[in-house]
Amino acid sequence: MTDRKVLDGNSAAAHVAYRVNDVCAIYPITPSSPMAELADQWSAEGRTNIWGDVPQVVEMQSEGGAAGAIHGALQGGALTTTFTASQGLLLMMPNMYKIAGELTPAVFHVAARSLAAQGLSIFGDHQDVMAVRTTGFAQLCSASVQMAHDFALIAQAATLESRVPFIHFFDGFRTSHELNKIEMLSDSQIRSMIDLEQVLAHRRRALNPNHPVIRGTAQNPDVYFQARETVNPFYANLAGIVSDKMAQLEKLTGRGYRLFDYFGAPDAERVIVIMGSGAETARETVEYLNDADDPVGVVRVNLFRPFDGTALLNALPETARSIAVLDRTKEPGAPCDPLHADVLAAIADSPEWQRRAPRVVGGRYGLSSKEFTPAMVKAVLDELDRKAPRNRFTIGIRDDVSGTSLDYDPTFRTESEDVLRAVFYGLGADGTVGANKNSIKILGEDPSREVQAYFVYDSKKSGSRTVSHLRFGPRPIRSAYLVDSAGFVGCHKFDFLSQIDVLGVAAPGATLLLNSPHAADEVWDKLPRKVQEEIIDKDLSVHVIDAGAVAREAGLGGRTNTIMQTCFFALSGVLPKADAIQRIKQSITATYGAKGEEVVARNHAAVDQTLAHLKPVKIPAKAYGKVAMSDPVPAEAPEFVRSVTGLMLAGRGDELPVSALPVDGTWPSGTTRWEKRGIAEFVPEWDPELCIQCGNCVMVCPHAVIRSKLVPESSLAE
Amino acid sequence: MTDRKVLDGNSAAAHVAYRVNDVCAIYPITPSSPMAELADQWSAEGRTNIWGDVPQVVEMQSEGGAAGAIHGALQGGALTTTFTASQGLLLMMPNMYKIAGELTPAVFHVAARSLAAQGLSIFGDHQDVMAVRTTGFAQLCSASVQMAHDFALIAQAATLESRVPFIHFFDGFRTSHELNKIEMLSDSQIRSMIDLEQVLAHRRRALNPNHPVIRGTAQNPDVYFQARETVNPFYANLAGIVSDKMAQLEKLTGRGYRLFDYFGAPDAERVIVIMGSGAETARETVEYLNDADDPVGVVRVNLFRPFDGTALLNALPETARSIAVLDRTKEPGAPCDPLHADVLAAIADSPEWQRRAPRVVGGRYGLSSKEFTPAMVKAVLDELDRKAPRNRFTIGIRDDVSGTSLDYDPTFRTESEDVLRAVFYGLGADGTVGANKNSIKILGEDPSREVQAYFVYDSKKSGSRTVSHLRFGPRPIRSAYLVDSAGFVGCHKFDFLSQIDVLGVAAPGATLLLNSPHAADEVWDKLPRKVQEEIIDKDLSVHVIDAGAVAREAGLGGRTNTIMQTCFFALSGVLPKADAIQRIKQSITATYGAKGEEVVARNHAAVDQTLAHLKPVKIPAKAYGKVAMSDPVPAEAPEFVRSVTGLMLAGRGDELPVSALPVDGTWPSGTTRWEKRGIAEFVPEWDPELCIQCGNCVMVCPHAVIRSKLVPESSLAE
Repeated sequence: MTDRKVLDGNSAAAHVAYRVNDVCAIYPITPSSPMAELADQWSAEGRTNIWGDVPQVVEMQSEGGAAGAIHGALQGGALTTTFTASQGLLLMMPNMYKIAGELTPAVFHVAARSLAAQGLSIFGDHQDVMAVRTTGFAQLCSASVQMAHDFALIAQAATLESRVPFIHFFDGFRTSHELNKIEMLSDSQIRSMIDLEQVLAHRRRALNPNHPVIRGTAQNPDVYFQARETVNPFYANLAGIVSDKMAQLEKLTGRGYRLFDYFGAPDAERVIVIMGSGAETARETVEYLNDADDPVGVVRVNLFRPFDGTALLNALPETARSIAVLDRTKEPGAPCDPLHADVLAAIADSPEWQRRAPRVVGGRYGLSSKEFTPAMVKAVLDELDRKAPRNRFTIGIRDDVSGTSLDYDPTFRTESEDVLRAVFYGLGADGTVGANKNSIKILGEDPSREVQAYFVYDSKKSGSRTVSHLRFGPRPIRSAYLVDSAGFVGCHKFDFLSQIDVLGVAAPGATLLLNSPHAADEVWDKLPRKVQEEIIDKDLSVHVIDAGAVAREAGLGGRTNTIMQTCFFALSGVLPKADAIQRIKQSITATYGAKGEEVVARNHAAVDQTLAHLKPVKIPAKAYGKVAMSDPVPAEAPEFVRSVTGLMLAGRGDELPVSALPVDGTWPSGTTRWEKRGIAEFVPEWDPELCIQCGNCVMVCPHAVIRSKLVPESSLAE
Repeated sequence: MTDRKVLDGNSAAAHVAYRVNDVCAIYPITPSSPMAELADQWSAEGRTNIWGDVPQVVEMQSEGGAAGAIHGALQGGALTTTFTASQGLLLMMPNMYKIAGELTPAVFHVAARSLAAQGLSIFGDHQDVMAVRTTGFAQLCSASVQMAHDFALIAQAATLESRVPFIHFFDGFRTSHELNKIEMLSDSQIRSMIDLEQVLAHRRRALNPNHPVIRGTAQNPDVYFQARETVNPFYANLAGIVSDKMAQLEKLTGRGYRLFDYFGAPDAERVIVIMGSGAETARETVEYLNDADDPVGVVRVNLFRPFDGTALLNALPETARSIAVLDRTKEPGAPCDPLHADVLAAIADSPEWQRRAPRVVGGRYGLSSKEFTPAMVKAVLDELDRKAPRNRFTIGIRDDVSGTSLDYDPTFRTESEDVLRAVFYGLGADGTVGANKNSIKILGEDPSREVQAYFVYDSKKSGSRTVSHLRFGPRPIRSAYLVDSAGFVGCHKFDFLSQIDVLGVAAPGATLLLNSPHAADEVWDKLPRKVQEEIIDKDLSVHVIDAGAVAREAGLGGRTNTIMQTCFFALSGVLPKADAIQRIKQSITATYGAKGEEVVARNHAAVDQTLAHLKPVKIPAKAYGKVAMSDPVPAEAPEFVRSVTGLMLAGRGDELPVSALPVDGTWPSGTTRWEKRGIAEFVPEWDPELCIQCGNCVMVCPHAVIRSKLVPESSLAE
């Protein structure tokens, strides 16, 4: 029986990478850090790889050092890997040229991330992997958590056979941090994909004083060029080797992949070519449109380097007459973005396709984890239907500066009715994310239920907002975008209701669970008018609980997570209530067992008390509240802070058009003072009787509101 | 009157860069080092820039540090530059994305160099600049020394107006180290190209505590994408700005450039597109063929980024039906090399050119300063005439592995009769290169004479071979390749005749000047049979001098350079003899004046004595010598050393086919012992009477031939 688990992309890739390597040289960088940290932890725990050895994990002082360590370990005959992203990957480039030039098998696992340009971003796009496409590394792209697992193995098998090093990458955050239910590769499956003879061949090529050779020589104009061309056959064979490994994996697991996977109508005239998680969204959209008799299609690029143009054209339906190539990167000054250029080259190579002369346009999407939704896919396909589709467009933003952006209809949705969608708003470190991960695992245990979870953090971490996006359904969930139409909305902090548009994601008829200091019969008056209107308009059913009070009563302090989790199970009906409560309790026992019986007992008690405190709210027929939404920044703030920073604080930064942003990353300073997050439930008060004048309050106040002055006692006299 | 000077590309670029910057943050790397070193020297000497300030030159601890210093200085409002190449440029990438993203005017001057892959190479190609084409820097390419001078200024003027940073690059060694006669930009011309208002605007944008702003913030999915698109108009305007600056320079100097310069027949059907020094060779070849009524053409790419496809197509003659795009780089796994991809994209964008449907193929040439000659250009143009020209070919090597290489006829030459060509073989550090640089400057003083010199060193530096390639003629010299048909050959070391094919470069009827320990009437018997045959077959006139003896007699020790230089002037007839001798003496006075009158007098005496010792050799009608060419390595050396290393030592490494080279940069070790360079004129002998047993001989013997043993005196008794 297949082992199925709920994992994120990082864990899925690291699981395989750890099993097939001897050395991991790391310098963790977001969003790849969990891969490195897991490897480090497993090594510390003494977990073994498929050969029964404990891989050695070495943390260096930068990615440059990690790349040097990798190169050295590989030359010593060790199977070696690393995990990296963004500028970290750039620092590895000098070594990457050498590792590839020396035909050294290795796989770098990359959670692809933006590069710092006008600003840094820890989020995902393909700028980093595109920047190293010149190095001679093969590049295999996973579009989902399952693929991150499978392709980690295919890359390793292919690098050993081909001797060409691989970058195996997937979208930072969107795939690296998405929880999804995948079929695990067993160690015996992994073993049967790795040819031991090829491992031994790698070890035999190691530098060894017993049979010395020299590598890394200087070459002059007389021979360098010829020597550089020696590798051609290795690259020419590579696509075939990757195909073979994919076929072998399919035989073992039933999961089939090709260099380019086509999804959609066999007679599609309009086709999207795309790589990474966006391909999953495009596939979902195309299949939805196919069901509505719209013959469109999508090519998912799996092997980006070496780029096999013939395989791409074979994947395309012959009927394709209008093609949009979507790149998740930007190279200012280039005539087109890289995948677009490759598709043009493939067509230029084929007399047959030259004759067919499809129109090929390029578009850019999803920089820095910008959402890429079915509505956007639809807009691109619609554009392809126009007589002269725009070229070099952007999708997902409003570009009022260069006019590149396509419009899209955000109400277009493809998600199936039988997929349960839930969104939870929590406060960073309040336990909401952990509770949701736990819920997903509980629900994922049911073999017939597929699950997905994705968590949006802002960069302020502890104390900021977290938004959890959960999906459950009967079929694999490929929606690589946020939930924007949820049947269940949990708001774990009451104040959010007046700060941001919590109910924007609520579907008509949805359930709203509110952690509220106000009782069910009092809460309505406390809601902002806009929220009241939304509740009535969307016909939401609202339930409240004062989770803080329940937690305090149960002796849990401020930890409200199990209480809110219990409410979710009680209200959502995704599991029978009794069953759900039992499973929550089991999971509490497992999670808190180490902290002693009393902690477990308190949590169990909290679960039991929860249902008694969860109350429905009676919804009036008309909104009549006097409470207004609070402004994210005060009216006296400067114009830029009000119109740009303020919108971002309100969670509406996506609405900002290009013209609103500074051209060169220059921002006004001193804007923190306009941002009052108001997250404290209690405001501390200075008690002169108790103060020992230690001065710590001055040190810790993040906004420097408390200031100390040192004065001679004599001055105080006056 | 225009100031004309003989300069190399590095000096030509550095001259401008130094004048228009406040700060140079450097970490010198071959072949860009002279730029950094000149700037450092000028700064130490207190030379000022065009604003009367002495630029500050800061040497950091790596190119990564230099890039950080540049970024910081630019943010402080200083006009800042650097000079770099190869892996050094790669280390700057993380900062380059930021410098470009923040729209910071700056020019990096790059002597483009290979990247270390299967081996490192200090020589020239475009791998480094192509690896950073993703960063958002503009890229302006100089194809000649004059252009390196002019484009350094155009880049600076354009970056200040556009705010987009520039890489200004030219071919490492081929342009950076080629001496050519150029028209110097005067300070007033430089001043009139630099808009002071734009300099002040840059300074006003500096980070300044008096009007604080913040740059380098973190941006999240809500705004990063929009912010990344804000720069589009700056890139859209850039080609126009560069065009304007080119027009302004033409107005000032008469030297006209466009984004893409076309040379050749207005009705050419076959056209080459190429960038860098190879374009000069292609231009020379095309013009030669045009003279023979062959309507071919070449597009020289000047502005590579942003790539203005429309301007490229406008430069192409409408008649072009077969186009070869030549790249001087390699990206294993890419569907085409970068310039090739850009041309395909330009054509795909133009319905008109799509209709014309020219055949576009790509080729690779000149990696690591591999020669690119008119014969190769001709071969490419011939290939374009075939019904199905090959695509992704290589030219300049024999690829017997992947079969990519085009054949070419090495006897095809385009050089004019009125260009005097001379080749000199010297021993590293024997003064040959210095003397030739001096000769070039003497000859360049004549306003009607154009000059060019290029020096081939191997990487062993002192004690190895240097080959000087000199050209003199009435028109600008664009031959960006080595002399292979010289009217004058100087062999400054007798042994070379039996080690390498010195006379391979001699044109029929050429003059051979030989530094020979054997007198004119004895030397013939000492020549290898093969050399005798070549002298007779090519009808060479041979002259000998024992320069070592003359030098010792004149009290110059082993310094033979002025003696050989005098012989060259005496034999070549390039200047009237008396005139030449006077100028050599003047130059001796200038060069050695600081070392005292006696040194000057000795050198002058050596010049006077030279002509008396220079003797013609009577050439018999038939070769009858018994001396054989010496084998570069002994017959008992291993097969690889004989067939690969040996050929390289014999200066014939260019003949090695791809199959001869290791695929992964693995070479046998311990091969030094097979390489007997035999460069010592005297073999030292151990004199037990004089030996004080200091052991120094053991320390300094590079081959560890002299070994010491420490034994108790008692052991010696037996």
